[in-house]
Amino acid sequence: MKCLLLAAGAGRRLRAEGPSEPKPLVRLLGLPLLERAILTAKQAGCEEFYVVLGCEGERIRNHLGDGRRLGVRLRFLYNPQWERGNGTSVLAAREALQEPFLLLMSDHLLDPSVIRSLREAHQRGALEEADVVVAVDRRPPEGLDLEDATKVRLEGDRVVEIGKCLAPYDAIDMGAFLCSPQMFAALEQTQDDGSLTAGVRRLAQKDRAKALDLSGTFWFDVDTPQARKAAERALLKQLAKPTDGPVSRYLNRPISMQLTRWLVNTSITPNQLSVFSFLLAALGAITMALPGYLPLALGGLLAQISSILDGCDGEVARLKFQGSDFGGWFDAVLDRYADALLVSGLAVHASLVQGGIAPWLWGLAALSGVLLNSYTADKYDAFLKKRLAEGKRPLRLGRDVRLFLVFLGALLNVPLATLGALAVLSHGEIVRRVLLLARNTHSGQR
Amino acid sequence: MKCLLLAAGAGRRLRAEGPSEPKPLVRLLGLPLLERAILTAKQAGCEEFYVVLGCEGERIRNHLGDGRRLGVRLRFLYNPQWERGNGTSVLAAREALQEPFLLLMSDHLLDPSVIRSLREAHQRGALEEADVVVAVDRRPPEGLDLEDATKVRLEGDRVVEIGKCLAPYDAIDMGAFLCSPQMFAALEQTQDDGSLTAGVRRLAQKDRAKALDLSGTFWFDVDTPQARKAAERALLKQLAKPTDGPVSRYLNRPISMQLTRWLVNTSITPNQLSVFSFLLAALGAITMALPGYLPLALGGLLAQISSILDGCDGEVARLKFQGSDFGGWFDAVLDRYADALLVSGLAVHASLVQGGIAPWLWGLAALSGVLLNSYTADKYDAFLKKRLAEGKRPLRLGRDVRLFLVFLGALLNVPLATLGALAVLSHGEIVRRVLLLARNTHSGQR
Repeated sequence: MKCLLLAAGAGRRLRAEGPSEPKPLVRLLGLPLLERAILTAKQAGCEEFYVVLGCEGERIRNHLGDGRRLGVRLRFLYNPQWERGNGTSVLAAREALQEPFLLLMSDHLLDPSVIRSLREAHQRGALEEADVVVAVDRRPPEGLDLEDATKVRLEGDRVVEIGKCLAPYDAIDMGAFLCSPQMFAALEQTQDDGSLTAGVRRLAQKDRAKALDLSGTFWFDVDTPQARKAAERALLKQLAKPTDGPVSRYLNRPISMQLTRWLVNTSITPNQLSVFSFLLAALGAITMALPGYLPLALGGLLAQISSILDGCDGEVARLKFQGSDFGGWFDAVLDRYADALLVSGLAVHASLVQGGIAPWLWGLAALSGVLLNSYTADKYDAFLKKRLAEGKRPLRLGRDVRLFLVFLGALLNVPLATLGALAVLSHGEIVRRVLLLARNTHSGQR
Repeated sequence: MKCLLLAAGAGRRLRAEGPSEPKPLVRLLGLPLLERAILTAKQAGCEEFYVVLGCEGERIRNHLGDGRRLGVRLRFLYNPQWERGNGTSVLAAREALQEPFLLLMSDHLLDPSVIRSLREAHQRGALEEADVVVAVDRRPPEGLDLEDATKVRLEGDRVVEIGKCLAPYDAIDMGAFLCSPQMFAALEQTQDDGSLTAGVRRLAQKDRAKALDLSGTFWFDVDTPQARKAAERALLKQLAKPTDGPVSRYLNRPISMQLTRWLVNTSITPNQLSVFSFLLAALGAITMALPGYLPLALGGLLAQISSILDGCDGEVARLKFQGSDFGGWFDAVLDRYADALLVSGLAVHASLVQGGIAPWLWGLAALSGVLLNSYTADKYDAFLKKRLAEGKRPLRLGRDVRLFLVFLGALLNVPLATLGALAVLSHGEIVRRVLLLARNTHSGQR
């Protein structure tokens, strides 16, 4: 499905306090707004884009090229009348688009699922009963400039009125539309106004405008410097996963997000970050294996720093659309090696301190427990997600907690007790998983 | 999609040498033929069955009940004329089936993919151009009674002639059909003959019969005691997986298949077998941890026996349709615990024999290597299967080889060298996997 992206406006309010770039090239967490819009749509399955340029169009075109760098096909359209409103920019695509298309704004951040939902609506035949489907949100995101937002009034899924100054209203327009070519005719009839809203209103009057309720899905409109900051915060907040453990949520994520905020503006890749975090853990393991309290504590600290850094690779990957199937797997394998080295380092230290067979046996038990915890995690996480969707929050002994235990144990100078705790907790967790999944499977079959 | 199963015949040739049950109740590797046919279709997504009974129908009906035990809905139809041919049995369903249906024989073993392919053909609209689609095989399976098989002559995918005494012919009828209700009219017109073949021939004459070429897919026709034995062999041969390692292929599978041939006739479940195989390995690990050569060798032998037995749970599950998502996962987790215990047992033994830190360090290295080998296996196996489909056969250090190494190492009384070999080979294998998948991913993106 072809995608029409509006990038013609001047963005005066956003540029008032500084940025010298045209608005679509203003960076937000490492990516220009327009690139982020394109890559979001690409992640939702779009490959062919028409970008309407106006203000400083040549500069934007030079920046993006033909799109090969982003892995998409880009074509550019010029709207000399861009100052007359964004409706005139849509009209600039009239010749190019003779078929249904997606209409997106370059200054809106969207979760890819918004675009996927619009595509699915098209597959379900939504354009048989309407000429425009507007993605709407009944609970607009925190920090959004509500005054400037476009509101819609609904009757069921029918849009009956749309505009900035609507009271009362039911939902906010998210800036993502599924359009039939009839949209062009409506815009032509409302050319005096010049806005996209006027075109949608015209279709609504003919009962040819529907709303798609995507309340709660992430989106943000970036119009002002304040909105840009709020959007960055909202985008960072998105990075936390529902399966994040307590140490991750309250300690690691808040720190790794601040690091990530800086890292996205460098050229450091997620895979490089994975390797760096692993090397730090390996250094921690070797340090811990030395005799004496100081190396033990220092090694534990390195383990915890590595655990924090371990969040950054995924965060950068998601923010810059650099994630790959291989990258995620490679990171997971390196994490397991880091875990294995840290447990082994602790066992060597414990054996140096007190000798005997106990440190080794507890080391073997902790090592197998930690690795099998990860081995059984995939299956359990699928189950966990189902539960989280149902509102229940089952326990999880995640890597964040395990490495925090190593850190604490090293700090408190109790290596053998730490190995014991790791062994007991991780094997206990595995037994719990097996029982839970067995019960769950059987009740599912009944 | 509804499924019509023919189970009305007397099966005289099969019963000549013994079985007192009616043919559909004759057992083959633990399951009566008719139950196997139903469960095969169920695995391919069918839930509603019409079973046509004739010879000793009441006995069959009493055995099967309403199908709840098998997790399907069964309805029974009686064909008092069953001795006049299997076409009359199809006709018995005339009132019950007013829509397209699948037609299967209770005495044919089929791979579920045969039924899935026929259903897909229906979804593609195959019944617009034909009233019957016959699954055919151009390379009939070894051991099949060719003389008695129904042959077809083809022009493209069009069936032009069908019969037992056809020469030359292009393919063999596999005994699975997709039919429109027009099939009943054709059978009525050929009622004098009474056979299903006559009905298909009538449709072929009107150019309303097509063939679906499924050459190479597993199937077997069980008409005689010899065919029953050949079918058992063919079904057992099916159990070997393309990813089986060399020890599995040449040593473990041949033995486990013989065990399985016996186990399917007991009520032992796959999960019980998984637990038994684990307990055997755990006993082996404890035995190996004792000092002296004899316990070491005995423990190694137990490990190898456990490795052989470990094939049986999956084999029984597949043969008796008792496999479950949970069962497969549970077996995998127990295997990992068995591996961990065996490596730990070896490390304890090596430490008792020679003392020092080396046995423990090699033990930790081997343990992490063995467990991470399994951790990385899923991803690698997906890649491996792609390669096998392309005809390339990449290496794989599987569990069969690892446990065989433990067995050999124990037998040769070299526990430390065994740990070293396990560590080096398994970590080397993991590095190889990472490099291979990295290269493969990148070349895929280019």
